[in-house]
Amino acid sequence: MQQYCVGIDVGGTSVKCGLFTVEGKLLDKWEVPTRKEENGRFILQDVADELKKRLWDSDLKPEDIKGIGIGVPGPVQPDGYVHICVNLGWKDLYPAKELQELMGGMIPCEVGNDANVAALGEMWQGGGKGHDSILMVTLGTGVGGGLIMDGKIVTGVHGAGAEIGHIHVRDGETEPCNCGGYGCLEQVASATGIAREAMRALKQSEMESSMRRFGDELTAKDVCDCAKEGDKLAGLTMEMSMRYLGLVLAHVSMVADPETFVIGGGVSKAGQFLVDLIWKYYDEYTPLLEKKANIALATLGNDAGIYGCARLVL
Amino acid sequence: MQQYCVGIDVGGTSVKCGLFTVEGKLLDKWEVPTRKEENGRFILQDVADELKKRLWDSDLKPEDIKGIGIGVPGPVQPDGYVHICVNLGWKDLYPAKELQELMGGMIPCEVGNDANVAALGEMWQGGGKGHDSILMVTLGTGVGGGLIMDGKIVTGVHGAGAEIGHIHVRDGETEPCNCGGYGCLEQVASATGIAREAMRALKQSEMESSMRRFGDELTAKDVCDCAKEGDKLAGLTMEMSMRYLGLVLAHVSMVADPETFVIGGGVSKAGQFLVDLIWKYYDEYTPLLEKKANIALATLGNDAGIYGCARLVL
Repeated sequence: MQQYCVGIDVGGTSVKCGLFTVEGKLLDKWEVPTRKEENGRFILQDVADELKKRLWDSDLKPEDIKGIGIGVPGPVQPDGYVHICVNLGWKDLYPAKELQELMGGMIPCEVGNDANVAALGEMWQGGGKGHDSILMVTLGTGVGGGLIMDGKIVTGVHGAGAEIGHIHVRDGETEPCNCGGYGCLEQVASATGIAREAMRALKQSEMESSMRRFGDELTAKDVCDCAKEGDKLAGLTMEMSMRYLGLVLAHVSMVADPETFVIGGGVSKAGQFLVDLIWKYYDEYTPLLEKKANIALATLGNDAGIYGCARLVL
Repeated sequence: MQQYCVGIDVGGTSVKCGLFTVEGKLLDKWEVPTRKEENGRFILQDVADELKKRLWDSDLKPEDIKGIGIGVPGPVQPDGYVHICVNLGWKDLYPAKELQELMGGMIPCEVGNDANVAALGEMWQGGGKGHDSILMVTLGTGVGGGLIMDGKIVTGVHGAGAEIGHIHVRDGETEPCNCGGYGCLEQVASATGIAREAMRALKQSEMESSMRRFGDELTAKDVCDCAKEGDKLAGLTMEMSMRYLGLVLAHVSMVADPETFVIGGGVSKAGQFLVDLIWKYYDEYTPLLEKKANIALATLGNDAGIYGCARLVL
């Protein structure tokens, strides 16, 4: 009998949902708006209502569903307890237990942190497919990480597992990072960081640069595009940012030593150009290693979360 | 019925052996010289002969022994295969399988890398007792690491797990590290590294220093002692070396996030003075963490290996 699983990725604006076969085929995908009023108390109810309807329409019964996985934007304790999810208004709850009850109590539910769950998704059906020890790096507004070792998410004892965005890489930084530190990876290798570093370079240098035309609106994408087109200052900025990222991946190799790094998030749209840059420095900082980890691009985009949520229950 | 286990820590000069209760009490301890002739083919035979005699004298039978764990100074594959142990002359063998046969085939045997096994020992009965996720740091000729997560040794996919001695921490280093890199932690925080950095400082500075009396014979212990006595240049050297170590422990927290760091090896004899220095910088580089890992001193000294070997089979 074909078995199915469901992934529920709860975000601040909408809840992304997906119905999968247990083999990892995405059969149906939908979104439910995230109702944040009254501390987000309707969110799981809305999800359950829509899910019941969909399962009914597909003629699926509770016994056909192996489980439902939920990803939430905040820290999750090993027992499924969520102390707080700022973006949802949630406080003090067990989302998996609640959803399980809302669905009638018959279908097992699991919950995980959204960044970790996205890593699990990329491991299952994305850029890390075929491996069971990966680090997923998300280069967006910040730099996120999700570490999977032997198929299991590494959350860490104090919830700092794979928080690679806050690894200190540069002395002498004068602006503080969101974490309160100075010189974190996130400050140089996130989309925000790349744009900021490029602005700094433009200010400090008199060099001609096609980046100047963007003025204060310069984005990481512009910097990547200009670098690809051969702009020297953009190229130097990308070299510096990706040198720090390559250095941190080398650190990760010398601590947890995963098989593969999977690079996702908005900045990863720069593609193989980016991977080549990261690899160059990762390679330089791992002379010890005869065999090295791969660096691959994420392939699931915004669906990584629902894939990973579904994988949580397998 | 009381059960026992045996730890066999194979070193280049001698094989340290210990008989334990399964609760972790060391009952008997002995050494067997390491016969390296003919590619070390007599080592395990010698160990087995002596062990049989000891078990006979203690009136113990195979069924009383839960298992025998062996630690070897080289990389060990997950299936127990050892490709090479330079210090022993070993090549292409399965030490656990061989010892099991030599002991009559009835007692289960396991094998592990000596640095990892020492970490396991400190977790079981030493500085990391009561925790199941620790990083053991050995500050000796080099800087070694052993990472245990959820009670299991993390060897890594390419054998680089916890190779923290080769994390790059300093740009601009001109002398190469043993690994071929430049600016590894080992170059500044090992016993050798501390002495070398102090010599550099003495050369570059005109400052009065009680370290000068040691001339070219200056050791890490001398540097620690002078620093404790208030010598300024020695103090600056220790601050710098331990700043890099604190930084790397922060990296480890932001990747694997263990409960406790256990500091061992010769340099750790400097005691709480050293721990306080490391903590100061570890704390500085982890502003993200509300709760942080402990830093503790190793307590088992040279016995960590036999403890960890015995623990391998439990």
